[in-house]
Amino acid sequence: MHKAGDVRVEDAPDPVVEHPTDAVVRIVRSCVCGSDLHPYHSLSAADGPAPMGHEFLGVVEELGSEVSGLSRGDLVLSPFAFADNTCEYCREGLHTSCPKGGFYGAGGVGGAQAEAIRVPQAQGTLVKLPAGVDASLLPSLLTLADVYGTGYHAAHQARVEPGDSVTVIGDGAVGLLAVLSAKQLGAERIVLMGRHQARTDLGRAFGATDVIAERGEEGIAKVRDLTGGHGTRAVLEAVGHMPAYEMAVGVVRPGGVISRVGVPQYEDAPVGFGSLFGPNVTLNGGPAPVRAYMDTLLPAVLDGTVDPGRVFDRAVSLEQTPEGYRAMDQREALKVMITF
Amino acid sequence: MHKAGDVRVEDAPDPVVEHPTDAVVRIVRSCVCGSDLHPYHSLSAADGPAPMGHEFLGVVEELGSEVSGLSRGDLVLSPFAFADNTCEYCREGLHTSCPKGGFYGAGGVGGAQAEAIRVPQAQGTLVKLPAGVDASLLPSLLTLADVYGTGYHAAHQARVEPGDSVTVIGDGAVGLLAVLSAKQLGAERIVLMGRHQARTDLGRAFGATDVIAERGEEGIAKVRDLTGGHGTRAVLEAVGHMPAYEMAVGVVRPGGVISRVGVPQYEDAPVGFGSLFGPNVTLNGGPAPVRAYMDTLLPAVLDGTVDPGRVFDRAVSLEQTPEGYRAMDQREALKVMITF
Repeated sequence: MHKAGDVRVEDAPDPVVEHPTDAVVRIVRSCVCGSDLHPYHSLSAADGPAPMGHEFLGVVEELGSEVSGLSRGDLVLSPFAFADNTCEYCREGLHTSCPKGGFYGAGGVGGAQAEAIRVPQAQGTLVKLPAGVDASLLPSLLTLADVYGTGYHAAHQARVEPGDSVTVIGDGAVGLLAVLSAKQLGAERIVLMGRHQARTDLGRAFGATDVIAERGEEGIAKVRDLTGGHGTRAVLEAVGHMPAYEMAVGVVRPGGVISRVGVPQYEDAPVGFGSLFGPNVTLNGGPAPVRAYMDTLLPAVLDGTVDPGRVFDRAVSLEQTPEGYRAMDQREALKVMITF
Repeated sequence: MHKAGDVRVEDAPDPVVEHPTDAVVRIVRSCVCGSDLHPYHSLSAADGPAPMGHEFLGVVEELGSEVSGLSRGDLVLSPFAFADNTCEYCREGLHTSCPKGGFYGAGGVGGAQAEAIRVPQAQGTLVKLPAGVDASLLPSLLTLADVYGTGYHAAHQARVEPGDSVTVIGDGAVGLLAVLSAKQLGAERIVLMGRHQARTDLGRAFGATDVIAERGEEGIAKVRDLTGGHGTRAVLEAVGHMPAYEMAVGVVRPGGVISRVGVPQYEDAPVGFGSLFGPNVTLNGGPAPVRAYMDTLLPAVLDGTVDPGRVFDRAVSLEQTPEGYRAMDQREALKVMITF
């Protein structure tokens, strides 16, 4: 990405093993993330060009001398953040705070919207998939790299439990998979706030019991009407803009939790007596340690119990990636997969 | 309180039972709260005069027809917020969100820096103390009305558990009792940030393992030095001013919790990627539902296992209450009891 709105597919040197803990993976499926649209709107030419993409599965092509447990030819899945999976943070399930960890597309590590990628801390990062996995499962498996694990993080941090009431703000892929996650954790009422019917229909299929298209004060009033005036105990905020935060404050029940997974496009927000403090509301969330959830979520994907890959409604070739960005930005596509 | 700095002891009509759910209590012990100092600094003459005080124990003098389980002559303790103790919020332990609840000194309910007080929702609010309780226990029992329960709320919301690492910000009565509470919940390392040695000495007696007198960046660096650079998992913020919030963000470990019980004197605060979101830090707390903790905390007070009443370092008569405010404001006294 050279600057906002300017995505180009260019030749780059083939990635190679630079450290003994690296692997090189040939990419089989990649995709465009909602969070990629933030720089697509705002990246300055001075900050570009930046390699893009952080969600992929692929085949191991090369392994550093210190990587064990993986072999050339293995089909592997990567979380969007690499990590050693052995430090105290990783052991606690907070891989995004691993001191040896980091993000693709930064600090000399390439992006995943590419033919191949160097994976640091490969042994801790990559998860080997079963040999001969059915190709029809690849979209759902790919969601574990980010959007499914991120939606699950929202629900997990909010401690959603059987019988719970939940509002999900945002009908993007993360919001819809937060719905699916809340359903898996047993939520009884799941209110989805979103305006795009094709998306909210998928949200209903994933488990939403109510859909609210209105925003702002009007949307807040609708959710309060549905909940006897109380609001829902959990609010999963999957947008990241201030109006979504304000809606979250408006629909959360006293004593409840606002769990954010939309990357905040603000730094300061209301947290005082009139917003969070008075009603003892908890605010949490952050970048999802999706590696921590892969073992939990993988079985139901592999046996077809859940089909989170339904969030992909368009596929492009690597050369068509700029068109993928355009389609997602214009909301013609919910989430675009890149196939090879 | 007529306006900032202007506290007067004046004759007022004797409180009477106004609703069948009321009781009238003759006050035996009351006190001045750190939170009373906020209006003592800022109350405008236009907003005054206001009846003050919300912490008391006393003797039941009159009972409404719908109050059962209490008798005239009972020694009773009140939480700083009254509540029915039967609604869904009270049953969850969130008495401060009870729809029938409220605060003393507002909405036609008097203050507790007085000879007697009307208690709404008396059956749900008042806790009967054992007959013949030793007078030496009254100070510690009085702390259950607010400061002990509030310090405990901070530790409870932060889910402090055995072996935990905790920073407490603030060496007022609430901060010191947050130290005691963290110790009771099994915290292994308790860092107290405060500058007044008599207070921090009491904090050490309550269980603080380290005391940091420095503030701001210097204080943050000291806590990080003590914790291998990580910060502590729990931070209990018992001040309420923005610099205390900023210190909390500075000393909390990734994945940790900032639990606030100091009433925020700000509405907006940093919560974005650079403060809470990036490291997956949880922010919670609020007005403490101290009624919910009384049953838990009462036994160790009654049998002398803990002595939270040590926070009272001065006693005044009701007539001397203005002097009590002055002494607390000037930090000559940690917490002032009013005796009758």
